[in-house]
Amino acid sequence: MSYPHPELAPPPPLPDEGLRVVALGGLGEIGRNMTVFEYGGRLLVVDCGVLFPESDQPGIDLILPDFRYLEGRLDNVEALVLTHAHEDHIGAVPYLLRERAGIPLVGSKLTLAMMRSKLAEHRITPEVVEVKEGTTGTFGPFECEFFAVNHSIPDALAVAIKTRAGVVLHTGDFKMDQLPLDGRLTDLAGFARLGAEGVDLLLSDSTNAEVPGIVRSERDIAPVLGDVFAQADQRIIVACFASHVHRVQQVLDTAVRHRRKVAFVGRSMVRNMGVARDLGYLHVPGGLLIDLREAEEMPPGDVVLISTGSQGEPMSALSRMAGRDHPIRIAAGDTVILASSLIPGNETAVYRVINGLTRLGARVVHKESSLVHVSGHAPAGELLYLLNLVRPRNFMPVHGEWRHLRAHARLASLTGVPDERIVIAEDGVVVDLVGGKAAIAGAVECGYVYVDGLTVGEVTESSLKDRRILGEEGFVSVIMVVDTSSGKVVGGPEIHARGSGIGEMAFEEVLPKVEDALARATADGISDAHALRQLARRVIGKWVSDTYRRRPMIIPVVVEV
Amino acid sequence: MSYPHPELAPPPPLPDEGLRVVALGGLGEIGRNMTVFEYGGRLLVVDCGVLFPESDQPGIDLILPDFRYLEGRLDNVEALVLTHAHEDHIGAVPYLLRERAGIPLVGSKLTLAMMRSKLAEHRITPEVVEVKEGTTGTFGPFECEFFAVNHSIPDALAVAIKTRAGVVLHTGDFKMDQLPLDGRLTDLAGFARLGAEGVDLLLSDSTNAEVPGIVRSERDIAPVLGDVFAQADQRIIVACFASHVHRVQQVLDTAVRHRRKVAFVGRSMVRNMGVARDLGYLHVPGGLLIDLREAEEMPPGDVVLISTGSQGEPMSALSRMAGRDHPIRIAAGDTVILASSLIPGNETAVYRVINGLTRLGARVVHKESSLVHVSGHAPAGELLYLLNLVRPRNFMPVHGEWRHLRAHARLASLTGVPDERIVIAEDGVVVDLVGGKAAIAGAVECGYVYVDGLTVGEVTESSLKDRRILGEEGFVSVIMVVDTSSGKVVGGPEIHARGSGIGEMAFEEVLPKVEDALARATADGISDAHALRQLARRVIGKWVSDTYRRRPMIIPVVVEV
Repeated sequence: MSYPHPELAPPPPLPDEGLRVVALGGLGEIGRNMTVFEYGGRLLVVDCGVLFPESDQPGIDLILPDFRYLEGRLDNVEALVLTHAHEDHIGAVPYLLRERAGIPLVGSKLTLAMMRSKLAEHRITPEVVEVKEGTTGTFGPFECEFFAVNHSIPDALAVAIKTRAGVVLHTGDFKMDQLPLDGRLTDLAGFARLGAEGVDLLLSDSTNAEVPGIVRSERDIAPVLGDVFAQADQRIIVACFASHVHRVQQVLDTAVRHRRKVAFVGRSMVRNMGVARDLGYLHVPGGLLIDLREAEEMPPGDVVLISTGSQGEPMSALSRMAGRDHPIRIAAGDTVILASSLIPGNETAVYRVINGLTRLGARVVHKESSLVHVSGHAPAGELLYLLNLVRPRNFMPVHGEWRHLRAHARLASLTGVPDERIVIAEDGVVVDLVGGKAAIAGAVECGYVYVDGLTVGEVTESSLKDRRILGEEGFVSVIMVVDTSSGKVVGGPEIHARGSGIGEMAFEEVLPKVEDALARATADGISDAHALRQLARRVIGKWVSDTYRRRPMIIPVVVEV
Repeated sequence: MSYPHPELAPPPPLPDEGLRVVALGGLGEIGRNMTVFEYGGRLLVVDCGVLFPESDQPGIDLILPDFRYLEGRLDNVEALVLTHAHEDHIGAVPYLLRERAGIPLVGSKLTLAMMRSKLAEHRITPEVVEVKEGTTGTFGPFECEFFAVNHSIPDALAVAIKTRAGVVLHTGDFKMDQLPLDGRLTDLAGFARLGAEGVDLLLSDSTNAEVPGIVRSERDIAPVLGDVFAQADQRIIVACFASHVHRVQQVLDTAVRHRRKVAFVGRSMVRNMGVARDLGYLHVPGGLLIDLREAEEMPPGDVVLISTGSQGEPMSALSRMAGRDHPIRIAAGDTVILASSLIPGNETAVYRVINGLTRLGARVVHKESSLVHVSGHAPAGELLYLLNLVRPRNFMPVHGEWRHLRAHARLASLTGVPDERIVIAEDGVVVDLVGGKAAIAGAVECGYVYVDGLTVGEVTESSLKDRRILGEEGFVSVIMVVDTSSGKVVGGPEIHARGSGIGEMAFEEVLPKVEDALARATADGISDAHALRQLARRVIGKWVSDTYRRRPMIIPVVVEV
């Protein structure tokens, strides 16, 4: 298998009739999926998602793919194909469209509808091209064929991209539920046909490549929900992802059977379910829905709330209920169902919510205690089916951290893809398909682009490093006022500290040491601000380290008057 | 079931012949287990462990039980019974012995040996009373009987505490592996006999109460290790907990079969395995062990490293190997086995290590991909056995977050313990066993005590709140120098910021606003430091919020000269 060398050079020019593949996100991480295909100087982009920050990226709202690779070439982008409407596939579109508003967005009906409704919040009206499984569309030199795939959101597509360099199949996110709620199966027959015609490069979803076996059907959740509803006589709250139309459908169906009314809670839940209902993807019997205000007034045994917040997001309604900071007051006998995955990194937050709700007397049902969630991604058993049906000449695992990509590469190897035609790449690695063979050709710069508040890309790794130190250790600042004419310290030193855990009184102990050091420096004719800062930093740093064995950020400041 | 009311009052005096039970840790959390029993004015303590901090307790090294409840009564403590030598049961002992060095420590041979070796690092020589399963010991009014229990460390004990108030059984941590490596079974016959005699109150380990079924045997790991070793021709590294003698034993046995030498890596691993070997709990064939230096020199295919760092601890050898910051250079073909649990909250760190190792070409085997770990705690199926054998008159789930305690309470209810005799308490809640009935009698203050560097209890919730804000948003400080004689601002305003993600140049925009505001204040005769600080805070805070939609900590400083 080919691995990217840690110090790859920029790639040579793409040979004629070669196809270049560069992921700007999604390789080496779960999220911000974005792959750029280049042929004959023209570009086709598949997906443009966001990544959610981890704990070592504090204060960050979102992470975008690094668009620098497209700099100066945005006009060459023929289209942006959106495989489905999850945030990790469409979340960065508003930011890309800021760079060039006219990029045509290609996707299925529901994907485009959810995309438009999201873009409307950003006051962007996109150009769109609606496509359907089983159809083709041509975008510059790229002939695309779309295939139905089953996932945890309806109307997802895989896309085959055909150029004179060969046929590439990009699965998007998929699984192979054989009894999907909407009857829309992953198009294995289509993949088999395409495989028979010859697939030169397969890019396939690696998220669950480490998980053995196949997924349980979404349908298997219904009887579990039924059981839980049957046992509940007070309020029921179901938390799930705001785009999981089929999960919500099953909750609605169960609510009808148990004669409960339903209210949606959370802006994205209300927005997406509105879209899904309008387009006929969500079937809502008349009179079932009520609004939250009405739900608060009704007897708890008559309502179901369907809410966001399944990942323990601190500002979500569910977290606020768990902390008694919401009009809905959780009481003994209430039932909360977390009908969702638990995204790694969110465990502490989610368990805090579960414990908070439990402490208030609620019964909390979650995926570790009951079958109230099935994954949206094909595990190893299903990935093998796909590999065997498509029989690709070259294989490149996508959508995953290194552990997932490598596990998926091993599956490909086991099905007979030659190891030298399996390419494990990461973000920014350039893979060229030339003469029927895919190989790493180099790498381009590809970093994290942080959205924090209103800014994009302004918060840097160095700010984050500062935040990590401040967050772990706090800071101690020492302020000295120097009279530039006399060269003397005329004010301070004053010490201010936050988060250091060192009491104000304790600094009385070190102040004389700083004063002494400053006095000696002045006596030696040292009044240079830089030298004084160094001096104060050294004295205080040593004292803190010796006394407390801690390393707060030490910030010496010289104000000149 | 009884729940603690959120606003419990301090308890009334304990009635004569009543037994008081107060957990100072371990109820509402996994860790810092410590339970205080009181009878006739005398105290018996069971365990004294530490809790490891979560992400919202940044910079904290350890969390201790709150010893305030024992203030002024330490001389009444007859003994501290240690059920086993895990950190969450013995880690806070050095801190308790600082308060009163002479508290007798009661425990099994291995527990006391590991405890002594840990205390030696703190330069403490404890008084110890070694006990054995099947024996009894009397400590003041407390007659204790000890029972063998099987856990993920050898020589663990449960303890029955008998007073005239009744018989209490505290399981400590346990599971019921029916084929334990050392043949030392959890003493179900003993529990049955005690149950037949009558157990008035059962305190039982709730960690796995949400997990259905029973545990796989520790033995089942051996063939999996064998398979992985057989497939490996380069270096093998096994990471596991430093106290898991049986896990290490199985790795040693597998290494012997595959003709590899073994080196221990990590201070606590070396220390504990030395103790276990000396006492005969770990069987090490002669010539098997080498030191790390030798291992570095040998052909990778001839060695196994057994290392700490299975939880992704950033300074551990394993994390440093994953980041290429260790003499052992991971290369393609190496195999790393994470033979341990994944403690909730550590996922991000552990997956980072796995991804780092994978990226360097190692095969990483972990519990999600292979049976290389079994839990040390009884799941629901085994807890039911215990409840049915003991048939306690009252039940109090211990060792767990709310979700675990409640799940365990439900199991007790299902086995027939009357709901009004099931007490769910949390840290500091006072449970009195009087006249054969256990009930909540009140609550005492019980907070988190933070160890940070060399200090204990000095870092407060308010420091942590500051750290959280600083860590998420950074800070912006503005310094003004005021001449007290003229009341004029003679230096500054100067702005210094770290971690705010706002570039230095950007502050040029707000400085004039601050200067204007200060000038107007001065013109109005305002030179009071507090007023000037408020003014600067308001101007900068508004500007940051409007321009960036962020909320860094704003720290205005007035230096008077």
